[in-house]
Amino acid sequence: MNQGKAEGVKSITWRDERLFFLDQTLLPGEVKIEEQRSVEQVWDAIKQLKVRGAPAIGVAGAYGLVVAMRGKISLDRGDFIQELEKQAEYLDSSRPTAVNLHWALTRVVDTLKASNARSGDELFNLLKQTAEGIHAEDVELCRSIGEHGVSLIREGMGVLTHCNAGRLATSDYGTATAPMYLAHERGIGFRVYSDESRPLLQGSRLTAWELQQAGVDVTTITDNMAAFVMQQGLVDMVIVGTDRVAANGDVANKIGTLGVAIMAQYFRIPVYVACPASTVDLSTATGAQIVIEEREAEEVTHFGLRRTAPEGIQVRNPAFDITPHELITGIITDRGIITPPFAESLKAAFSG
Amino acid sequence: MNQGKAEGVKSITWRDERLFFLDQTLLPGEVKIEEQRSVEQVWDAIKQLKVRGAPAIGVAGAYGLVVAMRGKISLDRGDFIQELEKQAEYLDSSRPTAVNLHWALTRVVDTLKASNARSGDELFNLLKQTAEGIHAEDVELCRSIGEHGVSLIREGMGVLTHCNAGRLATSDYGTATAPMYLAHERGIGFRVYSDESRPLLQGSRLTAWELQQAGVDVTTITDNMAAFVMQQGLVDMVIVGTDRVAANGDVANKIGTLGVAIMAQYFRIPVYVACPASTVDLSTATGAQIVIEEREAEEVTHFGLRRTAPEGIQVRNPAFDITPHELITGIITDRGIITPPFAESLKAAFSG
Repeated sequence: MNQGKAEGVKSITWRDERLFFLDQTLLPGEVKIEEQRSVEQVWDAIKQLKVRGAPAIGVAGAYGLVVAMRGKISLDRGDFIQELEKQAEYLDSSRPTAVNLHWALTRVVDTLKASNARSGDELFNLLKQTAEGIHAEDVELCRSIGEHGVSLIREGMGVLTHCNAGRLATSDYGTATAPMYLAHERGIGFRVYSDESRPLLQGSRLTAWELQQAGVDVTTITDNMAAFVMQQGLVDMVIVGTDRVAANGDVANKIGTLGVAIMAQYFRIPVYVACPASTVDLSTATGAQIVIEEREAEEVTHFGLRRTAPEGIQVRNPAFDITPHELITGIITDRGIITPPFAESLKAAFSG
Repeated sequence: MNQGKAEGVKSITWRDERLFFLDQTLLPGEVKIEEQRSVEQVWDAIKQLKVRGAPAIGVAGAYGLVVAMRGKISLDRGDFIQELEKQAEYLDSSRPTAVNLHWALTRVVDTLKASNARSGDELFNLLKQTAEGIHAEDVELCRSIGEHGVSLIREGMGVLTHCNAGRLATSDYGTATAPMYLAHERGIGFRVYSDESRPLLQGSRLTAWELQQAGVDVTTITDNMAAFVMQQGLVDMVIVGTDRVAANGDVANKIGTLGVAIMAQYFRIPVYVACPASTVDLSTATGAQIVIEEREAEEVTHFGLRRTAPEGIQVRNPAFDITPHELITGIITDRGIITPPFAESLKAAFSG
């Protein structure tokens, strides 16, 4: 199945009781949409990053349980729940550090356990509804981020983004891209600069592709061209996603975000971070408490299969960096745009 | 011939009347040193960027004339000069925009024309001496930049550089790397962070390699990790090369230099630019007068032969950027370190 544009660029499609993933590892070269026929296939797709992005893999996991359990509707309640828990544990092992995956699987299991459903048939219907609910909520959350952020994008503006916090990382709209998609839907003419985002190039492989598919005016640049386009007056705002926002407004995001924010400040360009409320972690006081994952050297020393740095060279490969809150103009969330002083405004918006 | 470390990492070697180039297009995967047996081979090596870097190709061109004329010593003065001019014109066509190549070829021709040498034999000896002189001067110039800059590098420091303004781009020592090589020769322990320098990766392919060969402690990072290593306190100074310094101290250099300089300023890290006096162009008032070459999109959309950005995507690919003088701490030249206010200090050092 290769429907390309006809299917849109949804990372996950649930249609006529069938589950489809867009294989993101083949982008932008090939648009391949694969039906997920077994839970093992779903496990594999998550493991191999065919489906990726925190919200998207939560949704993928929930539907994975539907796929796992659809042949089990003849089980009684006890056996059904037992099997469901086993399958949830199995799916969870595909990406053990993915918080959203664990959260979605737990939510499905807890919902079924808390229900009064007696038969496997009833439980399966509730399972489907729960997965569809998680999916719909994710779309709604991202759309809501878009609604709050869309007014920032005005006719003729240039917007710079980094990495992929886009439609492909979520069920739809994305986070950083949500204001862009809504502005585009409303006929506002603007242009996007998409940093390629070394080492894994999510910017050129994914963000440039999904914006191009939607008809948004998008230009790919290497990461080190961001200052150049800013200096030329082509960028009016920066919007990026985030993996975690600390209580003081410090932001962890893909490596390179810190540099973009510093350059934007130098050129007096506002920097917005977009995320759902769940990404704000008030239990993390500042960015200094966030441990930065260092990934394998080969991502930096190689490009595809080709070695581009000398044998035996020392390498740093931090997966993300911390942007201090003083560089951030606002945080666009599903509950509105949060502005400085963040220590107060985040607490007011998200505690309790 | 593949001598590797035994040969050192000289871009150009002239030994026992034979000319050798290190083929830089194969680095860092393969160290191949090719004897240049004909002027056509030299032309080809310059054209294909086997030898590259403004100072290095000037030296390569001068020796190219030696190779071209060594079978012509039986010619009389008139015919020798005529043939020399023809060969100089031919070599000049290998990279028509390379100012240093044209300068070196012209200097050789003018020297021979101005001489009293009568026979082809005498003229050929003068030709060799002139080429050797240009070579030695280039080594001396770079060494002199190193002598002026070496005191900036102190025990335990971290130095960040961008692109390749190294030994490979010159006859020896390089410009940005000259203070590093001299500090290393003097037993000072310091570490270097080398930006990979997309799109063409001169940083990881060439700078990381040549410093590694010399035994300097060097770490490769992607361009967008520069802010991260600075934030971690690992960088005490930045040294980069330059293609042109304007009269007010604005500096044109490889794309990405501007971003590095802005990030360094944010973290209060000094930024030095290293170059020979000939790179200071007092006839260019400011960086705004410098035309920025935009190169082909494929460098950004592809990596080697692999496409990494979508078909038909818009691309920017400026080859260099302009760093405003207010971001520059000092310019390390063969005549000393020039410091702000640059409009005055550059004029005082380099006019007349």
